Order: sequence, then C-alpha cells, then structure tokens
Amino acid sequence: MIKGKAVVAQGGGPTAVINETLVGVITQAKRSSYIIDVYGSIHGVRGIENEDFVDLSMISDQQLQRIAETPASALLSTRDKPDFDYCKKIIDVFKAHDIRYFYYIGGNDSEDTCRILSEASVVIGYELYVVHIPKTIDNDLLVNDHTPGFGSAAQFVANAFAGIDMDIRALPGVYIGVVMGRDAGFLTAASALARQYEDSAPHLIYIPEVTFDTDMFLTQVKACYEKYGRCVIAVSEGIRNKEGTPVAATILDDVERDSHGNVQLSGTGALADSLVKLVKNNLSVLKVRGDTFGYLQRSYPANVSSVDADEARKLGEIAVLQSLRDDFESCSIAIIRVGNYSVEYRPTPLTSVAKKTKGMDPLYYNSDTAMVTEKFLEYLRPLVSEIPQCERLDAPAVTKILRK
Amino acid sequence: MIKGKAVVAQGGGPTAVINETLVGVITQAKRSSYIIDVYGSIHGVRGIENEDFVDLSMISDQQLQRIAETPASALLSTRDKPDFDYCKKIIDVFKAHDIRYFYYIGGNDSEDTCRILSEASVVIGYELYVVHIPKTIDNDLLVNDHTPGFGSAAQFVANAFAGIDMDIRALPGVYIGVVMGRDAGFLTAASALARQYEDSAPHLIYIPEVTFDTDMFLTQVKACYEKYGRCVIAVSEGIRNKEGTPVAATILDDVERDSHGNVQLSGTGALADSLVKLVKNNLSVLKVRGDTFGYLQRSYPANVSSVDADEARKLGEIAVLQSLRDDFESCSIAIIRVGNYSVEYRPTPLTSVAKKTKGMDPLYYNSDTAMVTEKFLEYLRPLVSEIPQCERLDAPAVTKILRK
Repeated sequence: MIKGKAVVAQGGGPTAVINETLVGVITQAKRSSYIIDVYGSIHGVRGIENEDFVDLSMISDQQLQRIAETPASALLSTRDKPDFDYCKKIIDVFKAHDIRYFYYIGGNDSEDTCRILSEASVVIGYELYVVHIPKTIDNDLLVNDHTPGFGSAAQFVANAFAGIDMDIRALPGVYIGVVMGRDAGFLTAASALARQYEDSAPHLIYIPEVTFDTDMFLTQVKACYEKYGRCVIAVSEGIRNKEGTPVAATILDDVERDSHGNVQLSGTGALADSLVKLVKNNLSVLKVRGDTFGYLQRSYPANVSSVDADEARKLGEIAVLQSLRDDFESCSIAIIRVGNYSVEYRPTPLTSVAKKTKGMDPLYYNSDTAMVTEKFLEYLRPLVSEIPQCERLDAPAVTKILRK
Repeated sequence: MIKGKAVVAQGGGPTAVINETLVGVITQAKRSSYIIDVYGSIHGVRGIENEDFVDLSMISDQQLQRIAETPASALLSTRDKPDFDYCKKIIDVFKAHDIRYFYYIGGNDSEDTCRILSEASVVIGYELYVVHIPKTIDNDLLVNDHTPGFGSAAQFVANAFAGIDMDIRALPGVYIGVVMGRDAGFLTAASALARQYEDSAPHLIYIPEVTFDTDMFLTQVKACYEKYGRCVIAVSEGIRNKEGTPVAATILDDVERDSHGNVQLSGTGALADSLVKLVKNNLSVLKVRGDTFGYLQRSYPANVSSVDADEARKLGEIAVLQSLRDDFESCSIAIIRVGNYSVEYRPTPLTSVAKKTKGMDPLYYNSDTAMVTEKFLEYLRPLVSEIPQCERLDAPAVTKILRK
C-alpha cells in the first residue's frame, strides 16, 4: 500500500453504461485517504502518453450522476494497443505525477494493455496498482458471467426485433438484421428475448460460433417463409464460413483492419446487402430487406438496462476498493453470477480474461433450428430490465358472405 | 346519417403509434348507436376485397390499451393501391355486410384510395361515409401541421444521434447515418433535436428538398472534419441529384419499385456505403463509417413520444365523431397547430392531402451550412416528449510536467 494519485481511463468501443463505471471509480477513489487525487486520462492510454489529464476530484455529485447516465466514454477512448516501450513512457508519466493507481475500463485489448503495463512496472521497479474493469457489448470476456454494456445493448436489440416482428407481420417479407459481435453471438442471440408467440421474430439466428453455410441458410429461410409467410433473421456481423473467415471480409472490396489486426466489420451495410441479394437470387420472395444496426446498439441513450447500469457502477467502486487491499495484486474484476439472480465481483489475474474471446455456451444455441435455447433466455433475462410486451389483436373472424 | 356497420383498416408503412389511432376509432365507434358493429379489415383494403374481417367490438378495454401501446399495424397492412374496379369490389363487400362507415389510417396513398372509393360510392349510388386518418413517419402530408408517427420516429432519430455524437467524440472519425424519408427531410432534420453544444452532432444534414451536390458535400465534410476532428452526418434516404433522381437509385444495381411506382429506398445499406466510399476516396480520413437506420426508426417500441401517442389516439376518436355529424362529407382529418403548443383536428377534403407530398419549409433549413434552423427546432420540440440530455465531462486540465 502506498499513497499516490490515481488515473482512470476508458478504452475501446463505448457502451451505454461505461460512464457508470467511471463514476463508480471516481466516487470511491475520492473516499480513500491513500488516493490523493483522481485524474482522468483523455482518450485512454494515449492520453497518458500525452500527459493529457483532467482533475476529476472537483466534479459535483450531481454532474457525476448526469455523466453516469450518458452513454459512450466521457473521457473519450482509444484503439491504441501499447507495447512494452509505450508502457515505459506511460510509467515515466506516472512517475512524474506520482500516480500509483491505474483503473482501465475496457474489453479484451484493454485487459491485455493492463497486463503489459503491470509487467513493465515490475521490470522497471515502479510500484503500480493496475485494475482492469470489464466492459463490452459483445459479452465475450472469459471468467465473467457477463460484461457491463451487454445488458443494455441486448435490451436495445430485443426491442428492435420486437418492433420489427410487428412491422414484418404487417407487411410480410424477408428481413435480415445484422447485429454487432465480432467473435461471439450473445448480442445477436439477444434478438430472441422478446419473442412472445410461436411465430414471433426473429425466426432464425446466425452467430459467429457456428459455421455459416449458405445452402443451409437458404434452406432454413425458405422453410420459414413457406411456414409463416415471412422470415425475420438476426445475423451476427461476425458470422464465418467453413474456412473460419468472416463472411463480411469475403464480401468487402477493401478490407480495413484496426491496430489489433481485426477486420473492420461495423459501419458498413455490405453483409446485410449481400445476404439480401442471396435470398433474392435464390428464393421467390418479393420483399427482401436488410438493416445493419450499427452504432445505435452500443450508444442509444433512451433504453438502458437498470441492472446493467447498477452493476457497471458497482464494478467501478469494487475496483477501487480492491486496489486498496493490503494483499492486492494487479488484476481484472470479474462479474460472477451467484444464485438467481445476484452477482459477486471477484478479482481475477490479468492473464485470465484476455487470452481469447469467450463464445456462447453450445447449450445456448441449436444450429439445426438456427435458434437460441430456453437455457440462453434464462441466462439473459436477469440482465435486461425492460422486455417489451407487444400485444397482438385477438378478435373473432367475421363470417364471409360473398366468398363463402 | 344512416345506421350501419363500420370498418377500420391500416395502410402503408407502420408507425409506433398507428395502433393508438386504431384504438381511438374502435372505442369511439363502440359508443355510437348509429354504428352497429366495428369490423377490422386484415391487411388494409386487401382484406375488404377478400372479406377478411374481424369483429373488434368484443375486445376488452385492457387489451385495447395494450394494443394501442404496441408499434406497427395490429390489423396488418398493405401496399395495394385500388383503382375504380377494385373499389367496386370493395363496395360489393360493404353492401353485403351493411357497412356504411370506413376509416382508413394511412399516408398519401391511403388518402388517395379513400378519394377513389368515395367517388366510386357516389357513382354506384351507395351511401358510404369515408374518413382518411393520417399517419406517416415522413411527416409529408399537405394541410397537416404534422402527422402521427412522426413525433415518435423523430424522438428515435434524435436519441440515436445523441448517442452517436458521444460515440464519435470518443473515437473520432466521419460517420454517416441514413434516415428514412423519400420526399421530405423532416425525419432526417430531427437528428439535430438533441444538439446541446456548439460542436454537437450531427454536424451536417442533407435532405431531399435540396439538390445533393457531391462536391459541396465533400467540401462541407472536409471543413467540418478539419474544425472538429470528426464529422457526423445525417442523410435522408431520398436525397436527389440535380436531375431530381434519388441518389440511391443511381447506385443500386437492381432498382426495385413498389406498386405506386416508387423506387425502393429502404432496406439496403447501399446509399450509406457509397457515401462512405466517396469520403474515403476523396478525403484523408482514416475512420469512415456508415449506418442505415432502416426499420428501427418506425417501429421501435421503447421510446414513443407521449404527445404523438395522445394525438394519434385523439385523431381516431375525432374521425368517428366527425363521420356521425349530420353535415358530414367524406374527408381526411388534419392536425392543425394552434398556439404554442396545442392542436385542432380539422376535416379537410379528400383531394387536399394527397395531391403531392409536403416538403420542409425553406425557412427550416440552411443549405449553406447544411443545417436546420432554430425555426425548425421550435416547430419540432413540442412533438417529442423526451429529448435526451447527454452530459459532457467538464474538469480542469492537469498541468503537464514532462511535456510542458
């Protein structure tokens, strides 16, 4: 335990509740006598390298509350992925400012950054307490039962498909909605949460964990369309062909990669459009439409899951408390489910979360029916605070007179 | 005035509040001694031709309330556009069932259907009371100050851009969001409603009423990007080139037309993708993303404008009351703004609404800045019940030590 300043930063893609975690860190850090000041780094780790700090100690509780309720990253974000040399520069800045506590709110890449930074601090011999605090709408972090941001994004996707279900019932056809999720199908699978009737949408769901087979897809769409006169399909942006290549990457004429080498899948309608074309060219369906949900699902302000927001806040507070324990070692804080439904926040080694992405449990999805299982819905329900109830008209048919 | 049954139906694209109007019609019709029964026609006018009616008299008030709060068309919809012969068949069915009152909830095309049907009833000599009841998220009906469905869709779009503003601030780049609106820019313009700061998104807005010029677009995007380090753009799906052709139609390799001869603009990401490519190829911006909001904006259940819902309900009730007046002539019921803010529901001849679409008042938009005016925002604000408040972090910068 050592007295010093704390830095908090946000990395990677924003979520609807990532600022809850930020505010959890700030408020808890302000309560500690070991943390003499709380700085925010602007644009994640890049802000540390640039010495681009703001002093967060003076913000009123009221403003903090309003920031917590605002989506996306209030401290702004980065896709920078530091190596050892980058981390050395960070530690130079930490030394200059007497910063001993670092809280980094982010996903897989941010956890790995924490690991490298923590290792660098040991090599350099600078006492530094690093905590990675999970967030990602993809819900693909190991150890964690689920991740902050996912519940709200899931609620958005469930609401979207509930509306689309009614819409495509009114004016039937085939509809394809492409949902975020590079490696994991959780968010796409959440499209099924609001299904109320046997024939509710989505009728088919395709996730990255299961090979996407074009023939199988067309067979399933055809069968559904023949059965219901319509077919609503939720497709993950990350669906892969049997070679393991993202289908989106096989379509795009100029593949763009981020600094982590990941192919850019979001921010284009190409996957939806190519699947629409596939259906149009192979099945006799007049109306085929495709939408790509895009950025809306991760930063929509008006429909946040209160469970998600509460957990995100708590996680920030716990991260600070944990870092002040005598026996502290740099770590990530995982959300573990206990009972039905409660959670525990548990420290986990920095190497344990980001080794690889976590996919959906095979018991959550049935590839024969291209549909999630009840077990998945049981898993998902507690994470979402408001599931839309869409009422169908149920009235007796009038006896025909002319067309008896 | 004549005793008889009533039929209510819904035509065209669904909205978030079209079932409020339906429930308004049903509840008011049930109160009248002249209307001996209320039937719903399934799939709009097509259901009448097929004698596909349900009896709406028996639905409980509770279920009606739940239906009212459910988006999209509970009676299902149609894109059928009846001609005189089609209308003769409709009147045959009306005769067989002793139907004297017809309420058709829809947009431009539905109003024109009402006109043809009303004229056919006169030619045939069948006493029929026809009321067109407006709805459209496009807000493009003449005579009306605004139309039911628009306020809720506007609220969705405003929320979406508020979240995207925060998102693109956190991870800067150029973002293009394509919003519905074939002929009118109202919904795209609503993207500006939640702007709170001088540099809030969207920074540029392009509407169908003003010629879309590629060079001007690139110049404006470049200037914005240089000024703010980011640029968020709201583009109507209906933007047109100087020949008056929708830009989307010049991109699509297979142009699809509906039964009214309109080019299909929604349900594809092609316009957003081609604008993204345009920016990438002409400006030095690393991150350029495009989303097409698609069906989400017209049927999202979780964020309905309560003003919009109330007016939609009232409009349905007024339509029935109007049809029961001694001096009634078949008409549409328009929403007229009085004061700031209240509305009046006024009968207007069936020919007055659908002659052509209503575009945005030139005073609502400044093409030099590609931005809406304060006058437009004044017009829009009362129609939306919840404008998101997004809080930015406002904290003092820490003095640099190493990089002074």
